[in-house]
Amino acid sequence: MISNPFRVDPWTVHEPHVDLDALPQTESLFALANGHVGMRGNLDEGEPHAMPGTYLNSFYESRPLPHAEGGFGYPDEGQTLVNVPNGKLIRVLVDDEPLDVRYGQVLAHHRTLDMRAGTLTRHVDWVSPNGQRVTVTSERLVSFSQRSVAAISYEVAVPEDAGSEALLVIQSELFANEQMPVIEGDPRVAAALQNVLVPEHHSYSSHGARMTHQTRRSELRVGAAMEHQVFGPDDAQVTSSCSNNVGRTTVITRLKPGQKLRVVKYMAYGWSSQRSQPAIVDQVEAALDASVYTGWDGLLAAQREYLEAFWAKADLEIDGDPRLQQALRFCLFQVLQAGARAEHRAIGAKGLTGQGYDGHSFWDGETFVLPVFMYTQPRAAADALRWRHSTLDIATAHAAKLGLDGAAFAWRTINGEECSGYWPAGTAAFHVNADIADAVMRYVAATDDKAFEREIGVDLLVATARLWRSLGHHDSDSAFRIDGVTGPDEYSAVADNNVYTNLMAQKNLRGAADAAVRWPREAERLHVSPEEIASWRSAASSMVIPFDEALGVHQQSEGFTRHAVWDFENTPEENYPLLLNYPYFDLYRKQVVKQPDLVLAMVQCPDAFTPEQKHDNFVYYERVTVRDSSLSPGTLAVMAAETGHLDLAYDYLCESAQMDLADLEHNVRDGVHLAAMGSAWTSIVMGLGGMRTHDGQLTFAPRLPEALSGLRFRIQWRGRSLHVAIESADATYTLEEGDDLEIGHHGESVTVAKGEPVTRDLPPAPPVGDVEQPPGRAPLFRRHA
Amino acid sequence: MISNPFRVDPWTVHEPHVDLDALPQTESLFALANGHVGMRGNLDEGEPHAMPGTYLNSFYESRPLPHAEGGFGYPDEGQTLVNVPNGKLIRVLVDDEPLDVRYGQVLAHHRTLDMRAGTLTRHVDWVSPNGQRVTVTSERLVSFSQRSVAAISYEVAVPEDAGSEALLVIQSELFANEQMPVIEGDPRVAAALQNVLVPEHHSYSSHGARMTHQTRRSELRVGAAMEHQVFGPDDAQVTSSCSNNVGRTTVITRLKPGQKLRVVKYMAYGWSSQRSQPAIVDQVEAALDASVYTGWDGLLAAQREYLEAFWAKADLEIDGDPRLQQALRFCLFQVLQAGARAEHRAIGAKGLTGQGYDGHSFWDGETFVLPVFMYTQPRAAADALRWRHSTLDIATAHAAKLGLDGAAFAWRTINGEECSGYWPAGTAAFHVNADIADAVMRYVAATDDKAFEREIGVDLLVATARLWRSLGHHDSDSAFRIDGVTGPDEYSAVADNNVYTNLMAQKNLRGAADAAVRWPREAERLHVSPEEIASWRSAASSMVIPFDEALGVHQQSEGFTRHAVWDFENTPEENYPLLLNYPYFDLYRKQVVKQPDLVLAMVQCPDAFTPEQKHDNFVYYERVTVRDSSLSPGTLAVMAAETGHLDLAYDYLCESAQMDLADLEHNVRDGVHLAAMGSAWTSIVMGLGGMRTHDGQLTFAPRLPEALSGLRFRIQWRGRSLHVAIESADATYTLEEGDDLEIGHHGESVTVAKGEPVTRDLPPAPPVGDVEQPPGRAPLFRRHA
Repeated sequence: MISNPFRVDPWTVHEPHVDLDALPQTESLFALANGHVGMRGNLDEGEPHAMPGTYLNSFYESRPLPHAEGGFGYPDEGQTLVNVPNGKLIRVLVDDEPLDVRYGQVLAHHRTLDMRAGTLTRHVDWVSPNGQRVTVTSERLVSFSQRSVAAISYEVAVPEDAGSEALLVIQSELFANEQMPVIEGDPRVAAALQNVLVPEHHSYSSHGARMTHQTRRSELRVGAAMEHQVFGPDDAQVTSSCSNNVGRTTVITRLKPGQKLRVVKYMAYGWSSQRSQPAIVDQVEAALDASVYTGWDGLLAAQREYLEAFWAKADLEIDGDPRLQQALRFCLFQVLQAGARAEHRAIGAKGLTGQGYDGHSFWDGETFVLPVFMYTQPRAAADALRWRHSTLDIATAHAAKLGLDGAAFAWRTINGEECSGYWPAGTAAFHVNADIADAVMRYVAATDDKAFEREIGVDLLVATARLWRSLGHHDSDSAFRIDGVTGPDEYSAVADNNVYTNLMAQKNLRGAADAAVRWPREAERLHVSPEEIASWRSAASSMVIPFDEALGVHQQSEGFTRHAVWDFENTPEENYPLLLNYPYFDLYRKQVVKQPDLVLAMVQCPDAFTPEQKHDNFVYYERVTVRDSSLSPGTLAVMAAETGHLDLAYDYLCESAQMDLADLEHNVRDGVHLAAMGSAWTSIVMGLGGMRTHDGQLTFAPRLPEALSGLRFRIQWRGRSLHVAIESADATYTLEEGDDLEIGHHGESVTVAKGEPVTRDLPPAPPVGDVEQPPGRAPLFRRHA
Repeated sequence: MISNPFRVDPWTVHEPHVDLDALPQTESLFALANGHVGMRGNLDEGEPHAMPGTYLNSFYESRPLPHAEGGFGYPDEGQTLVNVPNGKLIRVLVDDEPLDVRYGQVLAHHRTLDMRAGTLTRHVDWVSPNGQRVTVTSERLVSFSQRSVAAISYEVAVPEDAGSEALLVIQSELFANEQMPVIEGDPRVAAALQNVLVPEHHSYSSHGARMTHQTRRSELRVGAAMEHQVFGPDDAQVTSSCSNNVGRTTVITRLKPGQKLRVVKYMAYGWSSQRSQPAIVDQVEAALDASVYTGWDGLLAAQREYLEAFWAKADLEIDGDPRLQQALRFCLFQVLQAGARAEHRAIGAKGLTGQGYDGHSFWDGETFVLPVFMYTQPRAAADALRWRHSTLDIATAHAAKLGLDGAAFAWRTINGEECSGYWPAGTAAFHVNADIADAVMRYVAATDDKAFEREIGVDLLVATARLWRSLGHHDSDSAFRIDGVTGPDEYSAVADNNVYTNLMAQKNLRGAADAAVRWPREAERLHVSPEEIASWRSAASSMVIPFDEALGVHQQSEGFTRHAVWDFENTPEENYPLLLNYPYFDLYRKQVVKQPDLVLAMVQCPDAFTPEQKHDNFVYYERVTVRDSSLSPGTLAVMAAETGHLDLAYDYLCESAQMDLADLEHNVRDGVHLAAMGSAWTSIVMGLGGMRTHDGQLTFAPRLPEALSGLRFRIQWRGRSLHVAIESADATYTLEEGDDLEIGHHGESVTVAKGEPVTRDLPPAPPVGDVEQPPGRAPLFRRHA
C-alpha cells in the first residue's frame, strides 16, 4: 500500500522530521491561502527552498506565446501567476551563523498544519555549527477573516541548558523579484518569469516597510507591507530599511539561556489593474493597520471561528479508516483555501499553492470544485460563477473570432482571455461552456437563488446555448451533430459527437430555454426570441449520441470503439503518464483514456443512460482508462459505486483523497490538485452517498464498502441543512435546519422534517462482475485483495 | 479574364517596362537556377529589391522551433534555406551618381527570360540625375552544364549622342550576410534569419575574390568565388579586395560617347557539411577556373545545347492559345530549374527561387514534380528519390520515436529531419510515405530501371509498407483501418480512414509485397518474411474505404459527408485563403476542401473507382473545394477531363499554368509554386491526354476542349520515345525511338512501331451535367461563358 509521510491524525497534517528532499512537495502541502492571498509552505528563513511562492489571486504577468507554425486566432499572449514580494521571509543569524537546516545539527524539526486552527506551526531545535543551541517556534496564518492579511509569530529561544548566551539578529523581510528556479521538460509546469516586478515605490518606518511594484507587460500594480511587534529583552534594537526590492526590519539582541525573542509579523497585500500607486499604498497600509489592531491573538481566534463554521457544514466523517479521514479533511481544507475569499476572482487548478499550469483556471473549477461549495457554502460557488460572468465580454469576442455565436469561455486563463497554446486540447474543448452552464443550473437548483439566476445565470445560460446552437448543425437526417471538438479525455481530441459534450450541450440548451421562459424580461434584454428558444429545444432533442450496437456500449466519440486499443501490455510502468512519453498523434487515434469522459457523462447526466448501459459502459471504459490525470479517480469512484462495485469505489476514493498527501502524480511540487480534492468530496457524497439531483429533487442511494462502518456528511439545500448518516445496514436523514424536504432514498420517496430523523434500510448491493483496468493501472490503493 | 504583365511569346517571358511594385514577383519569376545553385531575379545593382536571394540546394541554417505548449516528440529545431553570398551584385557609379532606377530617368528597362537560351537579359537606358545617359545590357545564367557555376555579362555603354564622357566605376561584389527584410503575419513565409554566416576565410587576387563561411548552428560550410574579365578602354583600372563579408572587384574607366565597358563575371559556389575549409576553397576555385576556361560564349552555347535536349523530350505544344503555350513552357522551365542538377538533394516546394516555406521539401516533389521528370528526363526523378533514400535512417528513427515500424519520412524538411511545427498538418500527414512509394513504383514502371529498384526501390517500399502495417489495424470485423491521420486536404486533419491515404497505403503495401517477391535477396537483407508479406497483402485487401450510401459518394474521410458544409454564401472574397482568416478548428470540422483529396485519390488510384463514382464524387467535391492551394487546379483539370468536363479541365489547366506568371495566389514573391508548375504538365498529359498507367500499361484517352485545336507531347517510356499528337477529331501516336509498344487509346489496344504513326479517332465526349464550385470560387480563367 502506498503511504504518505505524515502522522495519522484527524485534524492535523504533521511532519515529524524535516525531509529536505521532500521540500518541493511540502511547500505545496503546507501552503496557506484564503483564496486571495497564498503562501507556499517555504521554510521561514527562505532557504533551502524548491520554489518560493507568494501569490495573489489573478495577479499575473503576460508573456508571449511563441508558435513554431502560427495559425489564425492563436493566442499570442499567455499569463503566468507571479511570485509577489515574499513576506514569509525571516532570516536569523545566531552568533554570525545563519540559521539554515542544511548546516549545523538539527535536533528536532516538525511542522503541523492544523485544519481547525488554520495555521502552520513549526518547531526547530538547532545547534549551530559553532555549537550554539536555539529553538525556533513559528506559527503562520493567512487570514480567512481579513482577506488581505497574513501573519507570523516567530519565537527564538536559547534553552535553559545552553552553555552560553547568543547574539541574535533577526531580519524580517519583504523580498521582491526573488530568483526563481528554472524547471524544464514538463509542459504542465509554469514558464519561469524573472524580474517581472518593476519597482515603483518603497518606504519604511521603525518597525516595518512597504513597497509597490508593477508588472512589466500586464501592468498590474501590487502593494505589500509589513509591520512588526517585538517581544523580548528590553534592549532589543529594532531598525528598518527598504530599497526597491528588499524591505527589512532587523531585530538585534542577546539572549541568555532561558530567554526568548518573539517577533509578530503582520503582512498585507493588495493589487489592482486600475488603482493608482498611492491608492494601493493606502489600501495595504489600511489592511496592515487593521491586522495590528486585531492583533495576533485576535487573528488566531477569528481564524478558528471561521473554520469552525466551515467544518460545521462541510465536514465529512467516516468510521473505519483514520488515514482516509485525515486525507478527506485535508482535501476540504485545500478547497476552502482556494476559494473561500476568492470573491469574483478565478479559482486556479492549483489554488494558490504553486505555479503549475501557470496558475490558470480550467473547467476543473466548475466541474470538480464548485460542487463542494454549492452544497457546503454556496456563496463561494456563486462568487466563482460571478467571476466567469465578469469575463463574458471576452468570451463573446472569442466566440465571434471563432465564427460562433454566444460566448466561448477560455479553456485556460487567469483574466478571462484564452491562454491555450495548443488549440486541439484547448480552444476545441468547448465543453467548458456547458460545464459553466451546468454549474449555474446546479447552483440555482441547490440554492434557489433567484437573484443570482436573474442577474448572472440567464446571461451565462443564453450565451452558452447560443454557442452550442452555432457550433452544431442538423444533418440531412435532422440529427444535431457537434463535430470536431475535444471532450474531457485529453488522450483524444477534435472528434465528432463526443457523448459528454453532446449531452452537456443538450442540458445547456434545455436549461437556457427554460431559464429564458422563466425570466422573460432578461430574455427580452438578450433578444431571445421564441424562435430561438425553439431552435435550442430542437437541437437538444435531436442530439446525436453515438452508440456501438455491436459492442453494446456508447462511443466516447463517434468511431472511438473502432479504434485500435492501446498496447497496454507493452507499455512499461515508467512510461506513465503517457503524454510525457508518446506523441499526441499516437494517443489520439487509439482507445486509451486519460481521464473519465464517457464515465463523467454518466455521472453528470445520470438520466441519459439506463442502468445496464451504465454498467456496461463502465466496465468497457475501465479497461482503457489509465488515470493519467488527477481528475480521474473521483469520477470513477462515483460510477463504481453506482454500478455496485463498492470496493472499487473505495479504492478510487482513497486515490482521489490521497492524490497530494501521498503525491500520487509525483508533481504536487507544482501545487495541489484542487480538482482531485473536490472529487474526494464527490466520491463520498455522490459515490458512497449516491447523491444526485433530478429535476430539482435531491436523491440518495447510499451504500458502504466493506472497509467503512460509517459515513456522515451534511448537504445545504435551498436554505436547509440535511445531515446524512450512513451505516452498513441503514441510512439516517436528519433535517437540521429548514422546511420539510422530500428526498429520494434508493428510489423511494422520503419526507424529512426538522427534528425528526428518518432511517431507511439499505438494499443489498446487486451482484457485480469483475472490472479490469489496463495492466499495471489497477487502483493505487487496493484494499480488497 | 485575369492577365499577366508579360509579352505573349512562345519561348520567352519578356517584361517590357520595369515595375518596381512588382519586383517581389519578378524576382521569383526571373530567378535562374539549375537545381544546385539558384539566384533570384534581383536587379544587378542590388537595389531596389524585395528579397535578395542566392541559394544552394540544401544549404540551411537550423533555428529553434518554439512551442507555446510542448508535447512529446515535437521537433525542437527547424531549418531555413540560407541566402548565401550574393554574387549577382554589380554596382555602377556614373559620375559619382549610383545607377539606381529609383532616381534619374529610366528611358527604357526591359528584361527577358529566354527559355531556350537559359538566360535572363536586361536592358536599361538611363539618364542620371545630373544628366549623363548610359545604357546597360546584362545577361545572366546559372549553368546547367557546370552545376557550381553562374556567370554574368555586364556591359555599360555611353550612347553616341551623349553630350559628354562618363567617369564609370563598376563594383562587382560577393556580399555575405545581406540584411534581410523582415516579413511577418503569413505562416507560409520563412523565418528571417540574420547574420547566420560566420566568416572563416577570405582572399582576393587582381580580378577576383573568394570567401568561406560557416552557418552558426547547422555548421555547414559554404565557399563562394568570383573572377572577372574586363573588355573596354585599355586604361580601365581593375583592383580587387576582400573582407569578411564583402569581396569586391572594382573597374574604373572613362567612357566617351560611343564607348563601352563590358565585364564578364564568373561565380562558383560549393558547400559541405564535412569538407574542410581549404577543401571547399579549392573546390570553388576549381569550378571557377573551369568556368573561365569554358568562357562566356562556351557557357552560353552549352546552356542552349542542354536546353535543346530538354525541350526535345519535354516540350508541350498546343494550338489555339499562345498565352497558355508560353505559360506551359515557363512551367516546364521552372521544373527543370528546380530539379535538373539537384543530384541527390531535395527539390524544394519553391525550388531555388525564394524562401517561402523556409525552402522545405514536401510531398509535392514526389506527387506533382517527379511525374514530369519520369516521363521526360527520368534520371532527375531517380536522383530525387535517391535523396529520399538518403534520409531513410532519419525516417526510421522518426518512425521509432512515433512508436511505428518502418520509416516515417519528414513532412517538411531540408536535410531529412522533420521540421513540422504543427503536427496535425505535418507529422500526421503520413500519406507522404505512400507518395514516395508511389513515385518509386511509377518511376520503375516508366523506366524499367531494375538497378534502381534493387538498390533504392525495395528499401523504400519495404520501409513504407512496414509503416502502414503498424499505423493501421484490423478491427473486430477484420477491416483494416488507418485512424487519426491527415490527408492531402489541409482544411481537414487527424481523421479516420482518409480515402486517399488508405488507397495509397493499399497500393504501397501491395507494391512492397510484389517487390519483395521480385527481389528475394533484398527482401532477405531486410528480413522480410513470407508472413510479413502476407500481412501486407491482407491489410491491403481489407482496407476501409468509407462510402456514404445515402449520398452515393465516397467520404473524404470517415464521417466527412455528415459534417456541416462551409458557409460559402457568407464568406467574402477577401477572406480567401481561408486559413488566414478562420481558425483551423472551424475549417477542420466542416465540409470545405483546400486542395483535392478524394479527387486526387481518383487520379492516383484510377482503378479503385467506377466511372460513375468518379463523376459523382467529382461533382460532389467540386461544390466544397475552394482551391486555396496551388496544388488544386492541376489535379482538378485531370479529373474534370476524365469525367468529360473538358472546358472546365481547360479552365483549371490555365489556372495551374498561370499560377505564377499571373500571381494567382498573390505570393509568388516567396518563390514559384513548383507543384502547380508540375501539375500544368499533368493537366495536359493526364488531363487532356488522358494518360494513365495500369499494371505497367500506358493508356491514353485524349480529348480536346473547344479552345484548343491541337496538342502534342512526348512520353519517355522504357527506353522509348512516344510522340502523341491530338487534334479535335483524332490522335496520332508516333514511336520515335525504341521497340514496338502496346498502348491503350480510349480502351482500345493499339500497337505502335517505330516509323509507323498510328492515328485513331476520338470518341465523342459523353454528355455531362453542370459542375458547380462554391460561390465566388469558379475557375479564375473561365473561357467558356
